Amino acid sequence: MVLTGRLEDALRRVVEPRLEALDSIGADLSPITDATRDFVLQGGKRLRPQFAYWGWRSIAPDGAPGEDAMLEIAASLELVHACALVHDDLMDGSQSRRGAPSVHVRFASAHRAAGWPGDPTSYGAASAILVGDLLLSWADAAFAAGAARLEPAPRASAQAVVDLMHQELMAGQFLDIMEQARGGFSASAAARVIELKTSKYTVERPLQIGAAAAGGSPDALGALSGYALPLGQAFQLRDDVLGVFGDPVVTGKPAEDDLREGKRTLLVALAMERATGQQRTTLTERIGRADLDESGLGEVREVLVATGALGAVEQVIADQLQAALDALDGAGSLLRADAADALAVLARASVIRSA
Amino acid sequence: MVLTGRLEDALRRVVEPRLEALDSIGADLSPITDATRDFVLQGGKRLRPQFAYWGWRSIAPDGAPGEDAMLEIAASLELVHACALVHDDLMDGSQSRRGAPSVHVRFASAHRAAGWPGDPTSYGAASAILVGDLLLSWADAAFAAGAARLEPAPRASAQAVVDLMHQELMAGQFLDIMEQARGGFSASAAARVIELKTSKYTVERPLQIGAAAAGGSPDALGALSGYALPLGQAFQLRDDVLGVFGDPVVTGKPAEDDLREGKRTLLVALAMERATGQQRTTLTERIGRADLDESGLGEVREVLVATGALGAVEQVIADQLQAALDALDGAGSLLRADAADALAVLARASVIRSA
Repeated sequence: MVLTGRLEDALRRVVEPRLEALDSIGADLSPITDATRDFVLQGGKRLRPQFAYWGWRSIAPDGAPGEDAMLEIAASLELVHACALVHDDLMDGSQSRRGAPSVHVRFASAHRAAGWPGDPTSYGAASAILVGDLLLSWADAAFAAGAARLEPAPRASAQAVVDLMHQELMAGQFLDIMEQARGGFSASAAARVIELKTSKYTVERPLQIGAAAAGGSPDALGALSGYALPLGQAFQLRDDVLGVFGDPVVTGKPAEDDLREGKRTLLVALAMERATGQQRTTLTERIGRADLDESGLGEVREVLVATGALGAVEQVIADQLQAALDALDGAGSLLRADAADALAVLARASVIRSA
Repeated sequence: MVLTGRLEDALRRVVEPRLEALDSIGADLSPITDATRDFVLQGGKRLRPQFAYWGWRSIAPDGAPGEDAMLEIAASLELVHACALVHDDLMDGSQSRRGAPSVHVRFASAHRAAGWPGDPTSYGAASAILVGDLLLSWADAAFAAGAARLEPAPRASAQAVVDLMHQELMAGQFLDIMEQARGGFSASAAARVIELKTSKYTVERPLQIGAAAAGGSPDALGALSGYALPLGQAFQLRDDVLGVFGDPVVTGKPAEDDLREGKRTLLVALAMERATGQQRTTLTERIGRADLDESGLGEVREVLVATGALGAVEQVIADQLQAALDALDGAGSLLRADAADALAVLARASVIRSA
């Protein structure tokens, strides 16, 4: 079976028995188990598990023992991410995810449909908090189960990277909400958030967790950073562009969401810098408004294109992608050649995409 | 140093380096680190770490090797609990905890004090979600670090109980919010919530995690259940009584909170069953009202006493405490005598208390 199928199977092997264990607790937990199953198993790019796998393969040859343990560890990263998304959607008030209602919205709707007394919104929020906590506890259990099958030294090394990843993710999330709360826009703070939430959390640490599990040296882990950090930046910029210009049918979320939320991206920051007269008015009057409609969205898009902001961001994406590929070339024998080839493919797929 | 001091030290040894690591990420994360430090290190009964320690000692003699690993595992349980409390307070809208503002309130106040634009309540909620997630990830890291120092068999056995504990906690939390959302009162559902959230999560699983870490047999773990399950029930009933009759200065939260929230306890259920005429009117008109005041609280208390509900609950507490102590006697050589003596003391302290 190809890698993506093996990863999906590994994720099912982690999730299904835990869902069954919850069901067997003997009370009716089906709203939680159904929501959790749907959220985890219906879609998602599975980027972090793929990076973890290829981090491992950048040290361990194809067919090396321990692939099952590695796949379980890789699956655990998808569960960390599922927790982050469920909690993120709640924090941001996002209504949809992957084309379906976000978890807090799903539970609030069920509350309304059942005609229960009390506040559907609070019930939705509480349920989403619990689903996220559940996913995080499963992530740790899956990591522990996979890591238990490694030798003590790589186990400890991989665990250390996991611990760091959790810290950086939380730091990035908090900086993000604090920057949004403060208002204004600090380019350096925005760059730090991208570094923590995307470059490190999405790319660097998953790669290093895999490499550490394979007994990779500090130099090898460093070579992976050289690839991960520019790629992570390019990945985030692509997300930002898709957040405004993407096709909602493909991205699974309304194209207005990022602008309604007033998300401060490099794309918007560059447009603000370059905008003159009416362009500036359009940006300031449209961005951050909860009632932004299709026509307002169209006007903002025009300004983003006309100011050259979109072109400039696309150039940064291309440059950073190239930097990531160059880092692979520069790594020489630190990383196995077949894995480096796969990482190059994965880099392009992460950055040149429509969802 | 006595046990409680050793446990507190272990908790500091887990928390302090992680706080420093967060601080060293290089952005201003002091709001998160301060709130987390204050929440974890300022107070709390540390019951779960104590149960875990004595579960270990019920198998391992005093002075057995591995106490440091065990204390780290015990500390990890306090961090799981800190996560549960931070998220619980947010879900319940509780304003205070341990005599201080709850975490979401603390962040919302800071937002207001800073005069930031945007919504202080959303910022408080998002921050509390992140602080809880951070604590849960630290809990797992601390458990992994402690467990790494055990032999493979007890490590796997303790990990299995930890995984089960997480599942049961989430199941109990969800049943709790679903019952509240549905309205009405089901005695069997309430009993199931107590079993999951208190008997198992607070007492049985911590004891068994400790015993499993010491290599305890399934029979020994079963003997601990015989003590844990009635004790957990008595513990929860004491909490319920203190929630209405406790001194706010000692409990750290307003005496009206549980009744305002409309928390469905055995105490209230028994009073409803027994109340007649005006008593019933008092209960239905006062309980669940956000504007319940000191005088309304006094009236409800009178009904709880006059109907005999308080007396009946106190009798159940006494009976369940006795059942827990009898289980220790009945365990014979399965549990070490010095640990059984300590568990008897801990049982009394868990149930006969004012906070």
